[in-house]
Amino acid sequence: MHASPPFTSLPRPDDEPWLQQALALAEQAIGLTDPNPRVGCVIVSTDGRLLGQGHTQAAGQAHAEVMALRDAQEQGADVRGATAYVTLEPCAHHGRTPPCCDALIAAGIARVVSALGDPNPLVAGQGLARLHAAGVRAELLPVAHPLAVAASELNLGFLSRMQRGRPFVRMKVAASLDGRTALANGVSKWITGPAARRDGHAWRRRAGAVLTGIGTAREDDPRMDVREVQTARQPQRVLIDSRLELSPQARLLQPPGQLLIYHALPDPGPRGAILAAHGAELVATPGADDKPGKVDLAVAIRDLGQRGINELHIEAGYKLNGSLLRAGLVDELLLYVAPLLMGDGRGMVDLGALTALEAAPRFTLLDSTVLEGDLRLRLRPAGSSPPL
Amino acid sequence: MHASPPFTSLPRPDDEPWLQQALALAEQAIGLTDPNPRVGCVIVSTDGRLLGQGHTQAAGQAHAEVMALRDAQEQGADVRGATAYVTLEPCAHHGRTPPCCDALIAAGIARVVSALGDPNPLVAGQGLARLHAAGVRAELLPVAHPLAVAASELNLGFLSRMQRGRPFVRMKVAASLDGRTALANGVSKWITGPAARRDGHAWRRRAGAVLTGIGTAREDDPRMDVREVQTARQPQRVLIDSRLELSPQARLLQPPGQLLIYHALPDPGPRGAILAAHGAELVATPGADDKPGKVDLAVAIRDLGQRGINELHIEAGYKLNGSLLRAGLVDELLLYVAPLLMGDGRGMVDLGALTALEAAPRFTLLDSTVLEGDLRLRLRPAGSSPPL
Repeated sequence: MHASPPFTSLPRPDDEPWLQQALALAEQAIGLTDPNPRVGCVIVSTDGRLLGQGHTQAAGQAHAEVMALRDAQEQGADVRGATAYVTLEPCAHHGRTPPCCDALIAAGIARVVSALGDPNPLVAGQGLARLHAAGVRAELLPVAHPLAVAASELNLGFLSRMQRGRPFVRMKVAASLDGRTALANGVSKWITGPAARRDGHAWRRRAGAVLTGIGTAREDDPRMDVREVQTARQPQRVLIDSRLELSPQARLLQPPGQLLIYHALPDPGPRGAILAAHGAELVATPGADDKPGKVDLAVAIRDLGQRGINELHIEAGYKLNGSLLRAGLVDELLLYVAPLLMGDGRGMVDLGALTALEAAPRFTLLDSTVLEGDLRLRLRPAGSSPPL
Repeated sequence: MHASPPFTSLPRPDDEPWLQQALALAEQAIGLTDPNPRVGCVIVSTDGRLLGQGHTQAAGQAHAEVMALRDAQEQGADVRGATAYVTLEPCAHHGRTPPCCDALIAAGIARVVSALGDPNPLVAGQGLARLHAAGVRAELLPVAHPLAVAASELNLGFLSRMQRGRPFVRMKVAASLDGRTALANGVSKWITGPAARRDGHAWRRRAGAVLTGIGTAREDDPRMDVREVQTARQPQRVLIDSRLELSPQARLLQPPGQLLIYHALPDPGPRGAILAAHGAELVATPGADDKPGKVDLAVAIRDLGQRGINELHIEAGYKLNGSLLRAGLVDELLLYVAPLLMGDGRGMVDLGALTALEAAPRFTLLDSTVLEGDLRLRLRPAGSSPPL
């Protein structure tokens, strides 16, 4: 999966700040490069001067390495003999752009340090091999190195899609201390405060798609777009609507962008025709024999992977949350806890009637942060090896 | 409430470490001094040498000042002209021990720095005045100084009892991420892990009393004593049992100590006689006209204050938790959140059917700590002025 041992090498102490800078550049590519990974590149002279830097642009445009080479050129810097620090192994294949390896070789770069190997098992190591064959010293961090882990975290979705054929699935829930997402009468605006809501939109922004269910669509009529933070593009909006019950007046059908609806009907019928006329794309993904009338969630999520969705952001209700969890499709829980008690009301997840605690889905806390009085917890399923 | 302005004074920079040391000594008095406050004292020479130190002992035994003076004497130190740092204004009255002020004066202490004034409105400032009258320089930190706040936190319960006539009430709940305290079938062992349970016992230990309700007593048959951490004494165990339904075989009636039961019956009758024969003390605190068959929780808690309970630790279920919260009797929420989802099950608090979020009890997060994967949150009612 990763490059063969000759390339793996611990970074030198003076490499680490440059790798960190490359990671910071890659972070600037969030919300810009999907379905491509977020990559940063820093070019440094042998005497430790920054010559050029850049990050991947929107799909079809320049990759990080080319941006950094251009930056150096614009500044009149001579990159011959220099070191390039990249957060991901440079590509060796012609995609929509020429291979980055060739650009680095042509520019006379003498050494390339990659934080992470290419996660695509079909091409992993090819970039390093191509550099090596051209006389460039190609190095790759060990996978457990903190900077390699940071590089993985940044591209969890891309890695997931390459390695598992499906997006990294992050489920967002906002609830009270006693786990309520709404009062019994449905009131949920607003449990958490503005800072938590903005943070939620920042996570929406990094996702390739935002998914909800027909229950939430019907009750809250949400827009599911990115509003509270700036973004260069809007994520694809996705609805799970087994019987195509969405109202043609729903906000989900309004701009920005087309709504993607997974349903389970043998024939979308007139309701489907109306939704299609309102711009929705309908995809039938009925469950197998056990659940013929329900969308097969695993199939729908795999389809999103095939559509180039790296990170899938879920904001759904009790039932769909429960179904996704029970199907083992949730990779991360993004939980906003507001410091209030609501008593009776809507629960977070429908897990059926558990009779033993051993059956309760367990998580590992990644981090907790206070956002203007609300608490944000990130958790991953217990036993899931970080990062994937 | 606090000493008059002439005594209030910011500490000098070299005072602060000694005050911190006095606070650390006072912390060692937790679980030892009830109903007396936890006080630490450090005696320091004019050239900055530690001469003696000590903390309050069990009620009826020596106070911190006397312990520190004894410590200095045992070490052959001359305390004349020295400074005494105390976490609470020295007492000026004869209780079960002679006034500490007199001991400090007799020993020739020249300066006394108190982190906190006496919270008893009847005697506040008298200790400082008595010291002042004897020619001792008596200083008191401003109430908002971080060390004064730390001194308040250490004796929140004592302060509450002196100022409000009732204990400081801390409600402990252990729940899943989705706010469940047990599965629908009642299974709750164990939602949180050993570290969280030990921490819970450390909070029990600092309380003068641990209170639960008949629902929990019936379902879980808990002991409610301190087991997971060492303690010099066991807190008083208290049960809210409006109709005296506790089984005579309940663990609450077994050692250590006598169980205190608040009930609402006009006549305890034969059930009461059996419980009394099993060592329980019965107190009738029936509600007023609106709830005649229910214990008046405010009255019961006030009675606990009159019995010298400083901190009251609550470990109860859905119903009693809700009643206490709705009565405004909860000063702190001690919430252990285990990283799992339980779906349907027992809720944390019964708040009736709220119809607007404005009616939901709001809190302010004091701190959050990870305990071997579980999360511990401490919260206080929003708008409650810290520390009281």
